[in-house]
Amino acid sequence: MQIKGDLMTFRPDIKVLDCTLRDGGLVNSFRFSDDFVRDLYLANIKAGVDYMEFGYKASKELFNVEDYGPWKFCDDEDIRRIVGDNNTDLKISVMADVGRCDYKNDIHPRSESPVDMIRVACYIHQIPAAIEMIEDAHAKGYETTCNIMAVSTVSESQITQALELLCNSNVDGIYIVDSYGSFYPLVTRSLTEMYLGIAEKAGKWIGIHAHNNQQLAFANTMEALTLGASVADVTMCGMGRGAGNCNMELMLSFLRNPKYNIYPVIVFIQKHMNALRKECKWGYDLSYLLTGTLNQHPRDAIEFVTNDREDYVEFYKSLLEKM
Amino acid sequence: MQIKGDLMTFRPDIKVLDCTLRDGGLVNSFRFSDDFVRDLYLANIKAGVDYMEFGYKASKELFNVEDYGPWKFCDDEDIRRIVGDNNTDLKISVMADVGRCDYKNDIHPRSESPVDMIRVACYIHQIPAAIEMIEDAHAKGYETTCNIMAVSTVSESQITQALELLCNSNVDGIYIVDSYGSFYPLVTRSLTEMYLGIAEKAGKWIGIHAHNNQQLAFANTMEALTLGASVADVTMCGMGRGAGNCNMELMLSFLRNPKYNIYPVIVFIQKHMNALRKECKWGYDLSYLLTGTLNQHPRDAIEFVTNDREDYVEFYKSLLEKM
Repeated sequence: MQIKGDLMTFRPDIKVLDCTLRDGGLVNSFRFSDDFVRDLYLANIKAGVDYMEFGYKASKELFNVEDYGPWKFCDDEDIRRIVGDNNTDLKISVMADVGRCDYKNDIHPRSESPVDMIRVACYIHQIPAAIEMIEDAHAKGYETTCNIMAVSTVSESQITQALELLCNSNVDGIYIVDSYGSFYPLVTRSLTEMYLGIAEKAGKWIGIHAHNNQQLAFANTMEALTLGASVADVTMCGMGRGAGNCNMELMLSFLRNPKYNIYPVIVFIQKHMNALRKECKWGYDLSYLLTGTLNQHPRDAIEFVTNDREDYVEFYKSLLEKM
Repeated sequence: MQIKGDLMTFRPDIKVLDCTLRDGGLVNSFRFSDDFVRDLYLANIKAGVDYMEFGYKASKELFNVEDYGPWKFCDDEDIRRIVGDNNTDLKISVMADVGRCDYKNDIHPRSESPVDMIRVACYIHQIPAAIEMIEDAHAKGYETTCNIMAVSTVSESQITQALELLCNSNVDGIYIVDSYGSFYPLVTRSLTEMYLGIAEKAGKWIGIHAHNNQQLAFANTMEALTLGASVADVTMCGMGRGAGNCNMELMLSFLRNPKYNIYPVIVFIQKHMNALRKECKWGYDLSYLLTGTLNQHPRDAIEFVTNDREDYVEFYKSLLEKM
């Protein structure tokens, strides 16, 4: 497949989405201080970031409000407390999981909300339900995406069918999601070709959400962008579930569009992330490599790391027993 | 450029070189216990690793023996203490730096030494001196390589000239070395094409030695292998100077050749590397990204990390002043 762009010029279609609060929220139960969230918002604006995801739109019937910080639920008034009317170039997104979001009641018309984009996350068998949510959000005036999770465990024909269904919907963007951190760049390459091949002619853009189980989140994100994907999910210091995500600072040091500026990111990291890294755990560990390379959900590795275990041999044996 | 191989089969020409003692030795002044070195040697044999580098062949006139562990000097008798006659499939290499090695006296004929391969490291202006060392080692019966360092700071025409000189020598392999950790996979791609384009017809193999400043050591190593490079430098847990190297465990989980086995590596990491990681510092840090992306030597970042500094803003400003 032909490379789009090169290392000297830039492609104006490429956009950066900061999901520190959302994927990072999975590490600390969304308990970020307002000071943190406000500084992150300001840093993203200064850095030229295109989208900032504030968190999940989770159902308060399914989840106890006391068990989480506010960004598990992303009430419009919580977002407004930080951004006011958000008269900036930074767009705001929230994620809504199929089956975990009371979208008919909790997602209000865009004209009444500070949110610009609804990202619908689903497993492949939930595509019809995802499309229903996407059409609801689209009708309410939002940009929409579909983030199909765990595609490393399903067949290519299923992915193709899902992409065709989505291309007949009003969705704006479709994400390649490496939920288990099991992709090699060569895998990302074939998936990008597959996703773009179907989506491009329908006028949908492709995004990439990577995990760092094999220290490949940045490499996979670059690989997808290089082949024509347009939107990169990143987080400050890679903060995200398990092995974490593609680092904002790596992405901004790579992109050549002069609108991007790494300096406010460095300032933010020094002020907030240094401390946070001592409180919460994320990032590459041998245990995440092992679940990634075995194409397994990271939950066992998260438990391993959370419990400060270092007996990798026993851990590896336990994974092999689950194969 | 055409991809060689795929993700299901394997290329028998691909080989793995463990340089934990050598590049990792730059972190702890080569002070590894004999117990560590012996277990590493046994783990490499069990894991199917092809070469194990024991360290540098440094001149004892230039460096004080008391300032370093034995693997700075790699006396034949020190290696023999670990490997005996090394009646195994694992070959042994040492690195000799141009201008820092008294090779005429310190490198004995291969028939008298446990060493199989001499890797000559040099900067581009030292190519004539490197070739003299290579011819000396070749005449003594060794396999040889040339590792041209810091190529991110020199022009393509200089690299081409160096490669042509080397191709007229008796060297066996030539390394693409990302000394500053500044390569993107696209850069590795062009360099691999350039190196292979000249070396392949002369019958020389190409190796890749990556650094992890941008979390790309594994990705760059895979990229080079995918395009036809044959030898990958790796270290246990990526232990190496500054941001470290490509992790052995990542590489062995990627390669499909059934001769490779990750299990002894996991056992070794649990027994030795868990503890070592608490004593010494290496691996990705924002400071290494900053020197890498600015194509600067990592020495300032090493000092920053060693001094437990976290004022990335000041550090970044100081780097910009050096541009």
